[in-house]
Amino acid sequence: MADSAADWAGVAWTLLAGVRRRSPLVQCITNFVSMDLMANTLLAAGASPAMLHSLQELPDFTPNADALCVNVGTLTADWLPAMKLAAELAARSGRPWVLDPVAAGASGFRLNACRELVGLKPTVIRGNGSEIIALADASMGSTKGVDSSHDSKDAVEAAKSLAQVSEAIVAVSGAIDIITDGQRVVGASNGVPMMQKITATGCSVTALISAFVSVDPSRAFEATASALSIFGIAGEIGMEMAKGPASLRMHLIDSLYGLDQAAVLSCVKISSM
Amino acid sequence: MADSAADWAGVAWTLLAGVRRRSPLVQCITNFVSMDLMANTLLAAGASPAMLHSLQELPDFTPNADALCVNVGTLTADWLPAMKLAAELAARSGRPWVLDPVAAGASGFRLNACRELVGLKPTVIRGNGSEIIALADASMGSTKGVDSSHDSKDAVEAAKSLAQVSEAIVAVSGAIDIITDGQRVVGASNGVPMMQKITATGCSVTALISAFVSVDPSRAFEATASALSIFGIAGEIGMEMAKGPASLRMHLIDSLYGLDQAAVLSCVKISSM
Amino acid sequence: MADSAADWAGVAWTLLAGVRRRSPLVQCITNFVSMDLMANTLLAAGASPAMLHSLQELPDFTPNADALCVNVGTLTADWLPAMKLAAELAARSGRPWVLDPVAAGASGFRLNACRELVGLKPTVIRGNGSEIIALADASMGSTKGVDSSHDSKDAVEAAKSLAQVSEAIVAVSGAIDIITDGQRVVGASNGVPMMQKITATGCSVTALISAFVSVDPSRAFEATASALSIFGIAGEIGMEMAKGPASLRMHLIDSLYGLDQAAVLSCVKISSM
Repeated sequence: MADSAADWAGVAWTLLAGVRRRSPLVQCITNFVSMDLMANTLLAAGASPAMLHSLQELPDFTPNADALCVNVGTLTADWLPAMKLAAELAARSGRPWVLDPVAAGASGFRLNACRELVGLKPTVIRGNGSEIIALADASMGSTKGVDSSHDSKDAVEAAKSLAQVSEAIVAVSGAIDIITDGQRVVGASNGVPMMQKITATGCSVTALISAFVSVDPSRAFEATASALSIFGIAGEIGMEMAKGPASLRMHLIDSLYGLDQAAVLSCVKISSM
Repeated sequence: MADSAADWAGVAWTLLAGVRRRSPLVQCITNFVSMDLMANTLLAAGASPAMLHSLQELPDFTPNADALCVNVGTLTADWLPAMKLAAELAARSGRPWVLDPVAAGASGFRLNACRELVGLKPTVIRGNGSEIIALADASMGSTKGVDSSHDSKDAVEAAKSLAQVSEAIVAVSGAIDIITDGQRVVGASNGVPMMQKITATGCSVTALISAFVSVDPSRAFEATASALSIFGIAGEIGMEMAKGPASLRMHLIDSLYGLDQAAVLSCVKISSM
Repeated sequence: MADSAADWAGVAWTLLAGVRRRSPLVQCITNFVSMDLMANTLLAAGASPAMLHSLQELPDFTPNADALCVNVGTLTADWLPAMKLAAELAARSGRPWVLDPVAAGASGFRLNACRELVGLKPTVIRGNGSEIIALADASMGSTKGVDSSHDSKDAVEAAKSLAQVSEAIVAVSGAIDIITDGQRVVGASNGVPMMQKITATGCSVTALISAFVSVDPSRAFEATASALSIFGIAGEIGMEMAKGPASLRMHLIDSLYGLDQAAVLSCVKISSM
């Protein structure tokens, strides 16, 4: 594990370079709102996105993907079986898969769906504070189902507990992103507040995590922190040119595409907590 | 009711400030094309969008939303029950809901669906001239089902008649936007023609109306006119920097995000007709 | 048929001017990822997009559309009947329809679906090299189903064979776009590599082909080559201002909107192969 900021920066650069070199095929079963930005985020990072969610196609397709990203944003009952089958196929094929439990506490139906997905052994779970807290409570038998807003720091204990129960890396997005495997906890503090004014940035960084993890599945913890930091750096550079959320969205993707080693090495802010 | 242009400008600014301060949760059941721009429009205005349309989740979720926006753009038979249930839940919870009857006359199926939705007491209905005319005719028993193009002024009588039958505020987008409650008629003449060359601007302003109405449901008429004017102003300011429809789209959202009191007070163009 | 580069440039300009003048209604049954960019591409070119895929509406709507674009990107079993019915209705009404067999080889289910659609007499089929090769093999009874990457030149023979079997114009996108009717083969070499880093550019040019063909269905071969060239020119002009894929996407659409006769006449690169 990386110990110093310089170590982390080196790890993050190595993983980004790996994504660009290998162009991993990342299957995304995601919500309708996020598809455009998620696909463009993956392309800008050098990965190859495939938005494919047909139950009939999964047995042929999923085992050949390098990673799977499942996002429940616009969940309906007819999409859930494909999410679950894809997760099973990925796990069975030894491919990493990443869960984004969007609005986990918004309804009992959604919380149950997320709980079932957590049971299918995701490699990584990334959400905001409220989502991770809802999921941690649900995984331990209580169902609050309330989508209140929490700071990511408040969610550290929930994240650790969810990581221990699920055996997944758990990441909590916020002013400081928290990443934990249940024991270790690091914080990634790149990014700018205006990114929250762009829809699907959270969904897109989850897809980016999927790409990073696929490059070195044995280091999912490092890959998760690195992807969050890299996406945040792209936002920081983009913010220098942005005049509002829509131009930030454009500059963020352009910056992610153009990010060079010097910028990564000097900007990564990941440290133990 | 506001009487002069200055009154209207003050109302519009107060409502925009209210959206920014309260960040209303706006549930959107909308077409696939519009989801990205609609979510980003709501975020830029300070509201909190939630694209959620699962029948299973509506009883838990809809009563807690501050407003509901229903848009039939990519309607299919399996989405209609969720649209209807959400509308009923919103009405029962005393929350405003706004209908966008996209292409109402494109088919008999669609016209019937829109008619059923109109029967569920929307707070506001916003469409273009052809849509409002098709809907007004349908509500009065005739079904032309023709999607010809009409100027918004031609649609004034149809709008008044639809407002009287439905008891909704009816807005007709066009070179001059028309807003009526069946008796009063005002025109809002902000905006630029190139906005029609950007997909989903009409859908997005309907969502913005939902956010504005949620801030003061007792003044739905004022909120509707104000949202149309504010969105148009964002387009006017954006147009100063735009080189075509795609850059206009970006600048419009940036401008909506950054709109200040001085700009609103000097630019709002709403007047009685 | 156009013989020289100057002839082709004249044809391309005439067709673009025709799209702007007539504003053809182009019905799109397409994947979720592409809807936003596809609609904006059609609007920027002067056409009128309609994303409408409800089985119940097709009998009323499709016969009145000027062209139909069918794209299988996020195919599921429940969308296929609408794709097939719309294709039949378009063919029966004498309207051109264009097929985009996205990832045709990704699964047996998808390949079969594409094969069925090819059997419904598309006017044009546009794909990348791997897709056209998969489809050509499938149409001739072999099913490789492998989505390897091929250069468009490698796919020339597959394209010719698919065109002969299907009686469609077949276009293969690549560094040089190949267009064939089974006998004639031309290459269009406009565009820039970074367009491949923007999701849905391929889908969008297929929609643009639909618009161009609708202007003069008797010259589908010329319209297909022209649309590919025009979209590529918009990319070339956009690239002069772009700093990455997201700004290229914006400038491409702006450029397509603003494209004038001088630029078209001097930039079109289409020639016999």
